[in-house]
Amino acid sequence: MRPPLPLPLPAADPSPLATAPDLAALARGLFDALRDAHHDGIGITRQTYGAGETAAMRRIARVAEEAGLGCAWDAAGNLRVSLPGTDPSLPAAACGSHLDSVPQGGNFDGAAGVIAGLLALLHARRGPPLPRTLLLFVLRGEESAWFGRPYLGSSALFGQFDPAWLDLPCLQDPALTLGAAMRREGADTEAIAARRRLLDPAALSHFVELHIEQGPVMVARGVPVGLVSGIRGNHRHPGARCIGEAAHSGAVPRWLRRDAVLGAADLAMRLDASWRALLERGEDLVMTMGIFTTDPKEHAMTRVPGEVRFALEYRSESERTLDEFLALTEAEAAAIARERRVRFELGPGVRTAPAVMDARLLAHARGLCTAAGIAHEVLASGAGHDAAIFANAGVPAAMVFVRNEHGSHNPREAMDFDDFLLAAGVLRALLLTGAEAVGR
Amino acid sequence: MRPPLPLPLPAADPSPLATAPDLAALARGLFDALRDAHHDGIGITRQTYGAGETAAMRRIARVAEEAGLGCAWDAAGNLRVSLPGTDPSLPAAACGSHLDSVPQGGNFDGAAGVIAGLLALLHARRGPPLPRTLLLFVLRGEESAWFGRPYLGSSALFGQFDPAWLDLPCLQDPALTLGAAMRREGADTEAIAARRRLLDPAALSHFVELHIEQGPVMVARGVPVGLVSGIRGNHRHPGARCIGEAAHSGAVPRWLRRDAVLGAADLAMRLDASWRALLERGEDLVMTMGIFTTDPKEHAMTRVPGEVRFALEYRSESERTLDEFLALTEAEAAAIARERRVRFELGPGVRTAPAVMDARLLAHARGLCTAAGIAHEVLASGAGHDAAIFANAGVPAAMVFVRNEHGSHNPREAMDFDDFLLAAGVLRALLLTGAEAVGR
Repeated sequence: MRPPLPLPLPAADPSPLATAPDLAALARGLFDALRDAHHDGIGITRQTYGAGETAAMRRIARVAEEAGLGCAWDAAGNLRVSLPGTDPSLPAAACGSHLDSVPQGGNFDGAAGVIAGLLALLHARRGPPLPRTLLLFVLRGEESAWFGRPYLGSSALFGQFDPAWLDLPCLQDPALTLGAAMRREGADTEAIAARRRLLDPAALSHFVELHIEQGPVMVARGVPVGLVSGIRGNHRHPGARCIGEAAHSGAVPRWLRRDAVLGAADLAMRLDASWRALLERGEDLVMTMGIFTTDPKEHAMTRVPGEVRFALEYRSESERTLDEFLALTEAEAAAIARERRVRFELGPGVRTAPAVMDARLLAHARGLCTAAGIAHEVLASGAGHDAAIFANAGVPAAMVFVRNEHGSHNPREAMDFDDFLLAAGVLRALLLTGAEAVGR
Repeated sequence: MRPPLPLPLPAADPSPLATAPDLAALARGLFDALRDAHHDGIGITRQTYGAGETAAMRRIARVAEEAGLGCAWDAAGNLRVSLPGTDPSLPAAACGSHLDSVPQGGNFDGAAGVIAGLLALLHARRGPPLPRTLLLFVLRGEESAWFGRPYLGSSALFGQFDPAWLDLPCLQDPALTLGAAMRREGADTEAIAARRRLLDPAALSHFVELHIEQGPVMVARGVPVGLVSGIRGNHRHPGARCIGEAAHSGAVPRWLRRDAVLGAADLAMRLDASWRALLERGEDLVMTMGIFTTDPKEHAMTRVPGEVRFALEYRSESERTLDEFLALTEAEAAAIARERRVRFELGPGVRTAPAVMDARLLAHARGLCTAAGIAHEVLASGAGHDAAIFANAGVPAAMVFVRNEHGSHNPREAMDFDDFLLAAGVLRALLLTGAEAVGR
């Protein structure tokens, strides 16, 4: 028997989310150019309100202008790329991300969102004129690694830039204040300090941000595209303590001990069990005790530990879950204090509110992915993003995650370019059709 | 109505364990003199093989000689006070303790046992001649605080002094070796290095040591006298580690974490539960994780902890219990490693064997206390003592504890003098009558 002849495959229908080959090549070239320009020998460094950030933004502006898109710089030094619509009365559909990086970071954190947005506007520029204006925000200072505060550019957009931040010293160069750095890169710090709004939230129909995933979920699940349900808020006790009583490890029996390690370990286990139970109930939560230490000045193998210092952080998309977990922490600590004769001092709690992504945009995005046959997963973002600032200012917001290995904020970020193109297609569709989903 | 006249109380029978008032006054004077001579401004300091230790020993020798007791110094610089018996063929009944202290220690740790022994010999000196010789060993170098090794004098007695110890530097004065310190205080280090036995264990019927309790049990129980069932051995893992994987605290869900703090806390809780179960079964055990710390160079509130370093120590009178708890530790660590995707490296285990006190002497001591109406408690010694060296050399040994607040090795040691006299009476009775209990 002879083997059957291979059947000719039908030509694939071009997906409505596909990126034109020349635009894909442009994106690849931009990633390469950014990497070459800002590689510091170990990773990528583009300082917040620094020359590297400005140079990267100018490179984007140059490409946009050459393609006939509009470019404008606002008082905070953010770049706004636009494709004007035929009906100026309609709120604009917007996307965006940032171009600064942490020191020795990766090439995709931030830049992927900017380049995907640029592709969307360039793609739309090729079609018939649209009624609605499209905007790409290339935002300044998203990373807190330089001046200790994140979301500087997006906060300024909505008049939420605290003037006290102008005096923040650069962590890597304390002689440089944020205000001086901003002025050096062309920002109008007087206007910013006056908390003048640079953008009316009502002027946008919605905002979409593409970003690499900073956790391992999508790699573990094997999905290239993530749709973000919300950006987790957090509740933190940076300086919690469990206080017992130091004692001779050989001569003091269990019933007379006040062992701070066992007290704090008991709290860890009870919170871990509750965490698991909440996950089973479908709540969104992560819990971390990232610092957990006996006092090096007095701890010893032969001494019952008298004190443990620990940091407690939990994050959730739901403020209610944060409240519940705080109440649970306090109740468990009180119970352990009674049972183990120790004392807990959780210290002041610091709260950052969650940001909810728009449920209609999320449902619409799921529909887009399903229709295009793109494997996707809905997940919470554990890290913060500019999209949270837009959402909390009242702009319906959505986020599209791209699968990325090794996390972010390090040179080992690994985003597959095909995954990027898939997610960029979803971003473009959300940008173009999201306004209808939210009725604005 | 007129109040009834107070009834005259009957004169109390003098207890067979009572101490004559002049001997009690002598003891009080000795404690005071030692404190005055060796107070360093904060606590009591009598260095191992130091001038203070020697001066304190000479003070004891002076009192003994003035009362007609014999005094001899051995090659290790230990002082042997004797009341010769009429039958030199009988093994001698012995007691003893040490006179060195930790830096800034208390006045009773060691000295209480020496003074109680002196009282016993002085008391016996007043009665009719005894067939059996009584010995008081005033031992050198019990504290490890000076040269890092404990039981120097008693180890030398039985030829167990490792010649390598002669080169140990003084922790407080590294230019001074133990050998030089010993020679300076009159010891014959050549004889010691030859591991020549200074005492034949068969020459003693038994050995009794009085010591302050170094834990809080007797204060908590309200008993002035403790009878020691054994001196706990220990099993130690000084440098154990739980190794997980550092990760972003916001972006990594529970199922993808390898959290080293939760792994090590889980081990702590499982061992604590097993400890409790063993205590309920009547086993002797204490368990301590005195060091438990994330790495200060890399830990952070917002990072899932990738590694915890901890020390694990457990002590028991029973070698079998130590073995069981080690096996249990290894099994629990393996189970946690599977469940939590972490890895444990317990590191090399270091074992010190327990020393069993003689059961016949213990039973006899209980009988003595009960007959005299002295509230007492049988307990394990968590700290090591010279009596362990005698016991492990084959001499039936017993220990009498005196209630003591605030532990030892600090200036706040608080031994009530009446408690001391009660315990000293028990020591004397054990010294005089213990040989019959052990049939030697």
